Amino acid sequence: MSRRGFLALAGAGAGVAGGVALVGCDDASAGDAVDAADAVDVVAFHGAHQAGIATPAQDRLHMAAFDVTTDDRDELIGLLRAWTDAAAAMSEGRDVGEFGSMDGPYLAPPEDTGEAYGLRPSRLTITFGFGPGLFRDAEGNDRFGLADRRPAALRDLPHFPADALDPNRSGGDLCVQACADDPQVAVHAIRNLARIGFGTASVRWSQLGFGRTSSTSDAQVTPRNLFGFKDGTANVKAEHDELLDEFVWVAPTDDPAAAWLAGGSYLVARRINMHIETWDRTSLQEQEAVIGRDKRAGAPLSGGDEFASPDFDMTGAGGTAIIPPSAHVRVAHPAQNGGTHILRRGYNFADGTTGLGRLDAGLFFIAFTRDPDRHFIPLQTNLARHDALNEYIQHTGSALFAVPPGIEPGSFVGQQLFDR
Amino acid sequence: MSRRGFLALAGAGAGVAGGVALVGCDDASAGDAVDAADAVDVVAFHGAHQAGIATPAQDRLHMAAFDVTTDDRDELIGLLRAWTDAAAAMSEGRDVGEFGSMDGPYLAPPEDTGEAYGLRPSRLTITFGFGPGLFRDAEGNDRFGLADRRPAALRDLPHFPADALDPNRSGGDLCVQACADDPQVAVHAIRNLARIGFGTASVRWSQLGFGRTSSTSDAQVTPRNLFGFKDGTANVKAEHDELLDEFVWVAPTDDPAAAWLAGGSYLVARRINMHIETWDRTSLQEQEAVIGRDKRAGAPLSGGDEFASPDFDMTGAGGTAIIPPSAHVRVAHPAQNGGTHILRRGYNFADGTTGLGRLDAGLFFIAFTRDPDRHFIPLQTNLARHDALNEYIQHTGSALFAVPPGIEPGSFVGQQLFDR
Repeated sequence: MSRRGFLALAGAGAGVAGGVALVGCDDASAGDAVDAADAVDVVAFHGAHQAGIATPAQDRLHMAAFDVTTDDRDELIGLLRAWTDAAAAMSEGRDVGEFGSMDGPYLAPPEDTGEAYGLRPSRLTITFGFGPGLFRDAEGNDRFGLADRRPAALRDLPHFPADALDPNRSGGDLCVQACADDPQVAVHAIRNLARIGFGTASVRWSQLGFGRTSSTSDAQVTPRNLFGFKDGTANVKAEHDELLDEFVWVAPTDDPAAAWLAGGSYLVARRINMHIETWDRTSLQEQEAVIGRDKRAGAPLSGGDEFASPDFDMTGAGGTAIIPPSAHVRVAHPAQNGGTHILRRGYNFADGTTGLGRLDAGLFFIAFTRDPDRHFIPLQTNLARHDALNEYIQHTGSALFAVPPGIEPGSFVGQQLFDR
Repeated sequence: MSRRGFLALAGAGAGVAGGVALVGCDDASAGDAVDAADAVDVVAFHGAHQAGIATPAQDRLHMAAFDVTTDDRDELIGLLRAWTDAAAAMSEGRDVGEFGSMDGPYLAPPEDTGEAYGLRPSRLTITFGFGPGLFRDAEGNDRFGLADRRPAALRDLPHFPADALDPNRSGGDLCVQACADDPQVAVHAIRNLARIGFGTASVRWSQLGFGRTSSTSDAQVTPRNLFGFKDGTANVKAEHDELLDEFVWVAPTDDPAAAWLAGGSYLVARRINMHIETWDRTSLQEQEAVIGRDKRAGAPLSGGDEFASPDFDMTGAGGTAIIPPSAHVRVAHPAQNGGTHILRRGYNFADGTTGLGRLDAGLFFIAFTRDPDRHFIPLQTNLARHDALNEYIQHTGSALFAVPPGIEPGSFVGQQLFDR
C-alpha cells in the first residue's frame, strides 16, 4: 500500500500532515495511480537529466556522502540498482517496500523505516553523484575497473585561500542530495538509502538544510540567506535553456574518457559557516557595501529593482565606486569571471552551537556546473581572494561529484559508466 | 513596515514563500492590521498561559538555552523586557525593528536580522523558561536576589540509569522554545533574541527539530518518530482542560515560595539519541514488541484502533502477555505510573553524522509538567529501569526550566518574579 493510498483511506486529505506549498511546480508528472492533489506534488524521477538540478528548488535538504566499503564491482552495481529503484518509489510518494504488516516480512526488518508513512510526496527529488574515490581509492587502487573512465575534472578541489576544511565534512565516493518541501520526507529518503547500503556503503557526512537560498525557476520568489539578504537573484534557472546547455549540462564531446557523463553535470558542495554574531553587530551600511545590494529590496546599490543589472562603473561622491571593488555582487558577477554562470541550489543550515556559544550556522552551498576546471574553480579562486564577504564566512567542508545523466525506466543511475 | 505589509506590497500572496499548513489553528488571533490570510497563521502571544504549550504543535522547532552573563538585576530585567517585546512582534509576523532602510539606523547594525522578511507568521510561538541558575549560580551566589523565590522543584534533574549527558547540551539559566511551521521563522526568532542578548546572555546550546512528534490538539494527525511509529497518541491535548489543570499548569497553592509561577509550568528537555542503524536491522516483530503497538496503524497489540486503550492483561499462546512487560506503551502508561499524564511537545532531529558514520539523530523530548518531582521524575525513573526501548536510545542532553505564566500586554515574561 502506498503512502498515497493510506492518505485516501484515512481521509486525511491534502496538506494535513506535511504542510507543503504547491507553487512553482512545473515539472510535476502524474502517474496513472496518483490523484490530482498529489500530482502537482510529484517531480518526475525519470528523464533526460536527473531531477533536483534544474527542477524548482524545494524548501528543505538532506544530503549525505558515502564511502563505498566493498571492493566488489557487482556489489556496487547492486547498490546503485537498489538505490535507483528505491529513489523512484519514494519520489512518487511510495514506500521502499513493506514497512509494517503481519502480511509483510514480520520476522525480518521492515524494508521501509516508516517515518514518512502518511506524508505527501512533497516534491521529493533524489540526485546521485560519483566522487573521485569511485574511480581510484585513496591508496590508488582501481577497485572497480573504472579508472580509465574517470572524468578529467573529477578530483579533489584545490585548496582555496582561507579554507578551513574538516575532513569529516568533506569528500565521499558517492553522494545523494534529497530535497523536499517536508524535511521528514528528505530525512526519510537519506535514511532508507543508508539502510539499503548497510555493508556496502557507509555514511561519511550528512547535512540538513532548512531553507533554500536559491530560486531555480522564474516562478519562485528569491529567498534570503542568514545574512538577511536575498540570494540567487542572478541564478541560472530552469527556463534558461541556453545557459543550462552552456554552463550546467556536460556535452557528449566535453571529455572523451567520460562520454558516459553526457547529459550529466558536476555537483560542488561547500559548507560555508557564517560568523553570525559578527555580522549582526555590523552596520547596515557596511553590510550593504559588502554585498553590493540593498538589504530590503535586493536591488544593486547602483539602483533599479532586484533584477536590475548592477552598474559597476557608477561613481558617487569623490569618484568612488557606488558598488565597491570588493562587493560580493561585483566579484561574483559573470562580467568579472569571463562570463561564467553557475546554477546554485544551496540551503541555509543551523547545526546547534559551537563550543564557544556561537551558532554553528551558515550556507550549505551546492552548485551544478558543466566543468569545474573552467567555471567553478576560477570563480571560487576569485572570490576567495577578493570577496569582502570573506571577513564573515569560513569554508568548513568541500566535495565534488560527477552527476550522471537522467535515468530511463528499467536502468540504474550511472549505468552508462558500467556498460562496456 | 511589517513582513505582512511587504507581502501585500509585493503581491506575493499567501503561501508562496513559506509553504505552511493552515490546519488545526484554533488559537489564532487576529490583530486589527492583520489580513485574513495571515490571521489563521498567527497564534496569540498574550494570554493566561504562554503560547507554545497547550497551543497546537507546529511542525518545526528551534530551541536555545542561555547562560546569563551579567550579575546586574536591572540588566536581566531589561533583557526579559526586550525579549518579550521582540517575541510579541515576531509572533505577529512583524520585524523586531528596522532591518534595512536608508531611513532606518543606517550607520548602526539592523535591529532585525532580516532573513524572515517576506515570510508568513507561520504560527510562530516563543516560550520562555527560567533555569535553576537564575536563582543561585554555580558558585551558590544569589546574584539577582531571587534565591528565596526559587520553586522547590527547580533544580537539576537526578541522574537516571544509562544517562550519558553532554554538559554542553544540558542546563542553562534561561531557555527559549521557538516553534513555527517554517523553520526559517523559528531560526530567525532564536537568532534575533540571541542578538538582543549580546553582552547579557550567551547561547549555551541550541537544537533544531524538523518534525513534531506529538499532537497537542485533537484536530491534529498523530505524527511519527524516527523509529517509524506514531508518537504521542495518548498525549495531553489542548481540549483536555481537566488534565491540563491537574498535570500541566502550576496552581497558586502548589509552592508558597513560588506563587509567581501560578499559571505557569515546568519544561523538561531531554535530547534522546536513537540508534537508528541498530533499529533498522531489527525485525518488525521485535520493533512492535518493544513499542507495544502495531507499526502501521499505531493500535495497541491488544487490538482496536490507534486510540483504543491497551489491554495489559490480555494473554496469548502459553499465557504470555500480548503487550510484553517491558513494552514502552506499558511502562509509560498512566496505569503504571500512579495515573501520571505528561504533555509532550517533542521533535525529531538529525544533526548530521557521528564520527562513526552513524546518523546523529533522534527525538528532542520536550514535556510540560506541573510538578517534576511528582510527575516527570518518577515516570522517567520507571522508564529508565524497565523500558525495552532503552536498548535503542541514549539520553545525551537534559534541562529543566520553570515556565512563567502568560504575559499581559505591557508586562514582561516573569514580571511577577521580580515584583516585591
